[in-house]
Amino acid sequence: ILGRGEAGAANVSAVGLSAAVAAIGQAVAAAWQAAGLTARPATLACLGAAGGDRPQEKEALEAALAPLGIAARLWVVPDALIALAAASREVIGVVIIAGTGSIAWGRNRQGDTRRAGGWGYILGDEGSAFDIGLSALRAAVRAHDGRGQPTALTDLLVAHWALSQPEDLRSVVYGGSYPRLQIAALAPVVERAARQGDAVARRLYAQAADELALAAKTVIVGLGMQAEAVPVALSGGVFQAGELIIEPLIRSLRAVAPHAQIARLEQEPAMGAVHLAAQERSA
Amino acid sequence: ILGRGEAGAANVSAVGLSAAVAAIGQAVAAAWQAAGLTARPATLACLGAAGGDRPQEKEALEAALAPLGIAARLWVVPDALIALAAASREVIGVVIIAGTGSIAWGRNRQGDTRRAGGWGYILGDEGSAFDIGLSALRAAVRAHDGRGQPTALTDLLVAHWALSQPEDLRSVVYGGSYPRLQIAALAPVVERAARQGDAVARRLYAQAADELALAAKTVIVGLGMQAEAVPVALSGGVFQAGELIIEPLIRSLRAVAPHAQIARLEQEPAMGAVHLAAQERSA
Repeated sequence: ILGRGEAGAANVSAVGLSAAVAAIGQAVAAAWQAAGLTARPATLACLGAAGGDRPQEKEALEAALAPLGIAARLWVVPDALIALAAASREVIGVVIIAGTGSIAWGRNRQGDTRRAGGWGYILGDEGSAFDIGLSALRAAVRAHDGRGQPTALTDLLVAHWALSQPEDLRSVVYGGSYPRLQIAALAPVVERAARQGDAVARRLYAQAADELALAAKTVIVGLGMQAEAVPVALSGGVFQAGELIIEPLIRSLRAVAPHAQIARLEQEPAMGAVHLAAQERSA
Repeated sequence: ILGRGEAGAANVSAVGLSAAVAAIGQAVAAAWQAAGLTARPATLACLGAAGGDRPQEKEALEAALAPLGIAARLWVVPDALIALAAASREVIGVVIIAGTGSIAWGRNRQGDTRRAGGWGYILGDEGSAFDIGLSALRAAVRAHDGRGQPTALTDLLVAHWALSQPEDLRSVVYGGSYPRLQIAALAPVVERAARQGDAVARRLYAQAADELALAAKTVIVGLGMQAEAVPVALSGGVFQAGELIIEPLIRSLRAVAPHAQIARLEQEPAMGAVHLAAQERSA
């Protein structure tokens, strides 16, 4: 990797096509600059994009990016595919991504692909940092009402947002546009509470693990890989909670796929895009 | 009641203070007009408002409404209080409101009040039409993925929004601002599926009933009314589903308050505001 560039959000369904295209253009320009090279059209660009497994969104993004002259051939693939390619050179197995959002995505020896989850923060994203943060907020106010089990989360969340009482959580949550990223950023607070032994926080991580395992199991069964030593790569910030999320996930997943090889993704997803581009070029 | 007037949303936390004040002003003007009378300041106005049990919001709303000259004395109370006053002249008992949002609110013989729920669509609103609609959407896409139990809801929700496939639910849900009211409007679709015997839809109504019962139980216990024949009034559109929601709610509630007198609110909440204003004036 010669250069890296970063820019704002580029998820088409979250920010719209034109904002996504602008962000990708900025990131590519920044990468050329970081490499100390003059920007020019590359031979081939492999782009891991949310929505890259939906033909319409893939084609719309490719068409909208074409005028930017990023590469002679622009290749949009699912973001989960580059993560899987980073985990396995043969691009066979399953990747569970749990960051702000969540999805399980897989590919078998026959080249069939399958996903579960990936529906976004309103319809899905079970087991994501957003889901953990939202569940924590809801558990905190239930405890405050006396409807739910008492939990240290109530005070921790109030303190995290520098508020004076649980009622003030409303001001952050309803104060402007839906605070999706601020809610996802609560996951480390839940992790801390769980490590301090808070039963509600521990349950939230166990539930997230169950949801992620369920999505992966659905993919594994859909691809007929239950009996195989299928590689399962874990990618995304939620897995920074370590054994808190990974141990219950392994327990749940092994019940369906006893030989699954479950491990955190070692290489960054971007390396998967590099592998894919190199394979494609030499093919 | 001499005249009625309606206008847009007036929930301060949903639409902001100035939009709420404008809507209330319009509704009052329309009520005078419907009565065939010339608008003039009333002696007393009783206003049931969401947030009316939070002193800051109550005072802010009263201050912002003052310049409109609606009444010599403007009296903002919790929206749940007017519903309870419509159910009981003594204003003693509990009201469970389950419309777009949800709350349980009560008042005992000593005048103590207590609420559970009422945290809005992000933090709470368990058992509301919004909660039922959102849970239905999530169940539909889980079934479509193969992660969840198959349900007629998948096809019914796609048809309700005149889409061609479950993937297109994304376009409605993420197409613009958060479609809170469109999601709440899905509850009657879930009701239809439940009546046709769909197990997932029936479970969603049973879960909503459990959540509403839990909120009411918390209020009843908090007010020390478990042993009394406490009146519990059911108010809001969710209860249009009849025995589908009311039977499991009664079962769950009676386990804590065996003598509770549970019934749908017969008079509209507005009549409660009239009762309260009349009592206040003669006091």
